[in-house]
Amino acid sequence: MADLRFDPKDADFAVRVRASFDRQAVMRTIGASLTKVEPGVVWIELPWSEHLTQQHGFLHAGMVATALDSACGYAGFSLMPADAAVLTIEFKINLLAPAKGQRFRMVGEVIKPGRTVTVTEGRAYAIDEGREKLVATLQATLMAVVGRDGIQH
Amino acid sequence: MADLRFDPKDADFAVRVRASFDRQAVMRTIGASLTKVEPGVVWIELPWSEHLTQQHGFLHAGMVATALDSACGYAGFSLMPADAAVLTIEFKINLLAPAKGQRFRMVGEVIKPGRTVTVTEGRAYAIDEGREKLVATLQATLMAVVGRDGIQH
Amino acid sequence: MADLRFDPKDADFAVRVRASFDRQAVMRTIGASLTKVEPGVVWIELPWSEHLTQQHGFLHAGMVATALDSACGYAGFSLMPADAAVLTIEFKINLLAPAKGQRFRMVGEVIKPGRTVTVTEGRAYAIDEGREKLVATLQATLMAVVGRDGIQH
Amino acid sequence: MADLRFDPKDADFAVRVRASFDRQAVMRTIGASLTKVEPGVVWIELPWSEHLTQQHGFLHAGMVATALDSACGYAGFSLMPADAAVLTIEFKINLLAPAKGQRFRMVGEVIKPGRTVTVTEGRAYAIDEGREKLVATLQATLMAVVGRDGIQH
Repeated sequence: MADLRFDPKDADFAVRVRASFDRQAVMRTIGASLTKVEPGVVWIELPWSEHLTQQHGFLHAGMVATALDSACGYAGFSLMPADAAVLTIEFKINLLAPAKGQRFRMVGEVIKPGRTVTVTEGRAYAIDEGREKLVATLQATLMAVVGRDGIQH
Repeated sequence: MADLRFDPKDADFAVRVRASFDRQAVMRTIGASLTKVEPGVVWIELPWSEHLTQQHGFLHAGMVATALDSACGYAGFSLMPADAAVLTIEFKINLLAPAKGQRFRMVGEVIKPGRTVTVTEGRAYAIDEGREKLVATLQATLMAVVGRDGIQH
Repeated sequence: MADLRFDPKDADFAVRVRASFDRQAVMRTIGASLTKVEPGVVWIELPWSEHLTQQHGFLHAGMVATALDSACGYAGFSLMPADAAVLTIEFKINLLAPAKGQRFRMVGEVIKPGRTVTVTEGRAYAIDEGREKLVATLQATLMAVVGRDGIQH
Repeated sequence: MADLRFDPKDADFAVRVRASFDRQAVMRTIGASLTKVEPGVVWIELPWSEHLTQQHGFLHAGMVATALDSACGYAGFSLMPADAAVLTIEFKINLLAPAKGQRFRMVGEVIKPGRTVTVTEGRAYAIDEGREKLVATLQATLMAVVGRDGIQH
């Protein structure tokens, strides 16, 4: 992916990312956990669970998108100033293969940080009997929001 | 949106759509129900629920994407022959406003049906204290699959 | 499409759109002209020309994207204040059919205007021996920029 | 980007790619040339030219998209069998920075080849006074077509 290195604007970025993640009830619903938080890079992992499946018993594409969008969103958020909130403006996902596996790793990375707009890329990997397979790629455009009522990080 | 009229290839399309929907465990997890199934048009509705929220208490963008992708997928599936399964190749979503409301309506419509590739558009509406608001638009590209092992409708 | 009505912030929006369009040398290269400029709605039309074709003699998808992106960009620009410039952050295009015809009409419309971010939708029609056919749909996200060096409308 | 290695199905893939490229009149119009053709990887380069510019004198985003879509399309085409033609189903582009420079390099790579559907990624670089800058990323979904009237490679 990017192989870019970024300097965080807020030294406490990891605390801020983890606190926001913990406020997302849906992350508990899908069993997701944060497994890496570095400047511009966030991993989210989750196990397969029957209640997240589509008609063939694989992880539903929407669950892949949910976790991958969050990985990208927090990758972008990690580079924002301490008083900013992050909004996803749009994302696009290509589903390369069925999300078949026991565990899933969502890797979100910043491609281009910006004062207002940040562009990120994500890759979803299924781990199926020990073998890792790329199952989806996602591109998300984020906006940093400061001082808007009702929007907190 | 499209204002197009399509003839279904399979007269039992609605039975087929409902049976497939019922096999998606994730639709029960998010509390979604099918409220319209017409040739090339499918509506999916769901109530707000705390376990689907992001950090501000609104419906998580991934939940909007999950339900909207399914509405588009089933809109396309409704026009496919009886022996076809449907796969989402890719989708793109623009998040226009926070998904704030008590109920949500996801409208999926076929723009261009095809033997192999079908293109669809979706609109997500939040119903907040009786007022309806467009909160997201989605475009999904679907593929009809016939006779592939492990892929059923 | 949208069936939305918008009030322009700048009464001279049409003059501003036309002046900016005239500064795009590439619009002359592809033979494009502005055929409608209303608040939130812009049409761009161009004739088929051999020098814009792909290997089958149809209009190249990139030419469709170029004209459609501009139609959407100017639709958004028409609603921005007089001192703003417009940038396309991203766009996504679905190519529904070969761009086969003698003329092409690109219709750009605003779906959601915003102070910073505006979302638009576009449709490309080929006119082939008098019959009009939808050949592409596009979604573009725009940003209004005020007071940035080197960026003018 | 991908760091994937692919085996071409047709040993003469490079001849086939170059012949198709030469039939695209629009590539001459924009001054593009093929500078790398490897299995699953294609580069297209072009110089800045006044007739391709937008209102600020930079390369128009549509020209970036045109060349980058072609780089991705030919990257996919290089892995297809000898009797297949390639169609772009859809693409999505993020414009990261103005396309300001004297030359531009468009890098297209296959992420996931497939019998019917192939997914690719592209990166556009501007070379401005000797310095290279990433100015756009693109994702394109391609379809291999065999035996359809009027569609040739």
